[in-house]
Amino acid sequence: MLKVNLDSLDLNSLPTGQSSGYFYIDTIDEYFLPFFLLRGEKDGPTALVTAGLHPTEYTSIEAAYDLILNQPAVIRGTLAILPLINWKGFWQRSITYNPADNKNFNRVFPGDLKGSESQVIAQYISEKFTRHANVHLDLHSGNMVERLLPFCIFHKDNPKSSELADVFGLPYKLGTNLNGVTTTAATSYDCAGLIAEGGECGHVDRDHVEALSLGVRRVLSFLGMTSSVVEQQHYECPHEVELRSEIAKTDVLWYPKARTGQTLQKNETVGYTKEFFDKEAQPVLSMSNGVLLYMMDSILVKQGEPLYSLGEFPKI
Amino acid sequence: MLKVNLDSLDLNSLPTGQSSGYFYIDTIDEYFLPFFLLRGEKDGPTALVTAGLHPTEYTSIEAAYDLILNQPAVIRGTLAILPLINWKGFWQRSITYNPADNKNFNRVFPGDLKGSESQVIAQYISEKFTRHANVHLDLHSGNMVERLLPFCIFHKDNPKSSELADVFGLPYKLGTNLNGVTTTAATSYDCAGLIAEGGECGHVDRDHVEALSLGVRRVLSFLGMTSSVVEQQHYECPHEVELRSEIAKTDVLWYPKARTGQTLQKNETVGYTKEFFDKEAQPVLSMSNGVLLYMMDSILVKQGEPLYSLGEFPKI
Repeated sequence: MLKVNLDSLDLNSLPTGQSSGYFYIDTIDEYFLPFFLLRGEKDGPTALVTAGLHPTEYTSIEAAYDLILNQPAVIRGTLAILPLINWKGFWQRSITYNPADNKNFNRVFPGDLKGSESQVIAQYISEKFTRHANVHLDLHSGNMVERLLPFCIFHKDNPKSSELADVFGLPYKLGTNLNGVTTTAATSYDCAGLIAEGGECGHVDRDHVEALSLGVRRVLSFLGMTSSVVEQQHYECPHEVELRSEIAKTDVLWYPKARTGQTLQKNETVGYTKEFFDKEAQPVLSMSNGVLLYMMDSILVKQGEPLYSLGEFPKI
Repeated sequence: MLKVNLDSLDLNSLPTGQSSGYFYIDTIDEYFLPFFLLRGEKDGPTALVTAGLHPTEYTSIEAAYDLILNQPAVIRGTLAILPLINWKGFWQRSITYNPADNKNFNRVFPGDLKGSESQVIAQYISEKFTRHANVHLDLHSGNMVERLLPFCIFHKDNPKSSELADVFGLPYKLGTNLNGVTTTAATSYDCAGLIAEGGECGHVDRDHVEALSLGVRRVLSFLGMTSSVVEQQHYECPHEVELRSEIAKTDVLWYPKARTGQTLQKNETVGYTKEFFDKEAQPVLSMSNGVLLYMMDSILVKQGEPLYSLGEFPKI
């Protein structure tokens, strides 16, 4: 496969047609960034698709490769796909972090050339791709210890980002302006960012692979980059929810009872926590009415991690 | 909870009754070994139960704690339960290894006081427990990336070990004399060792928790340590199989097709492998006739790991 120094890339001067291979970064050892670039015959928008910021979110990585192998028919503009950002984490089967610096890639964007490895990589991606992109679609899934319903995350203060969530077509959407995540960083580059989540537990689920890759195709069609009618089919707008998460105050043993997708009343039992040698487990009660969007599916939940996240419907 | 220096333990001079807490080892920082000890009113055999050599085999860890919380009524002899050997791996959510030295606990028994941390811990367990035990039941499960049918592993050249597999009551059994595993080490101490596997994918599955804890109760009853009739119920002897594993020659992407429990003919497709950017995946064909006992359920299989393991029935 083609190996290319990422410093040499100028996304605005690509020739028509496609290329794929691996970028490398001079200052980072043993790191490769797989890429696929496709420039249509006509000028048009630039769309960036990323996956694998979290290396065991396999459904999203598979969806990005699925898009590479079954290319959208881009006639206008440029499509860039980076299917596996956390290259080292993937090969070391690290559940969430980049083993090079133990950082979460989705907390370090837009990155920093003076920071540690994840920050440097994030800065390269931001400057080489996001800066020139109209949209940044960042694909995610439940990792080995996460269950979730499919949903999109948009940037709270960016109406274009919110609109992308409607176009993408997953059943729920929620806004955030958290620092370090790709949607917030994209907005700082005047790019509409969207995080799309589908699939869970580190499995590769074909239905969710297809839902994520279809969402990308819908956005490309919406942007006028493709003209496929398949991608213009009717879909329902997502339910907009507020995310409310119960965070573990200490490392704890966790026994889920409710299932993702279940609608919960306030004070219903979501699951139980205990410590080793405890005979009795303590119930964890739902903090509100809503739909259970996210759940840790691991006997161990670490301090600071969410036990569950509820999608609260807006008050009418 | 009680914290006890493991150097001070003499399993042969325990008082009647029970105790629980954490052992520590002077030379090892930040390591705790949870324990439960129960000595019956009458003299009798000593049974050691271990779990959590592999820290995301949660079903087996839960089964060991289940035995502690719902104690077998031991009237003769001594029951020692060590439910979480790989303490550091558990809290760091390490899939297989001890993060202190990146060793697999089930390849370092009986251990070595001059070795690295896992070897030192293994040697302590061997000298303080296995040396005085008549049986060592070592509970395992499928970790976050493994699917499996329940089966027992006994020591090939130890008829007492093989008999324990019949008593334990899981549907399959297979023999090994691999160095470093607990069953081989137990035999070197004139102790009958057994590895029991149940549960998969890092989930806590109640049915398999109960199958593992019931297996331990059956062995205790068989040894005359308890007199519960519940534990003497009828069960079928397991099918004895030879394990045949297909080992990945390089790091590879793996797409399973067959499911554990399925009976395969030689040359049936078990799954597909490919590399990134490959359009076509390569079929992996069953090497023999048999039952699919074990399967990697991860898109990434690393060099040296099994893609799948088949239980081959003996030639008649």
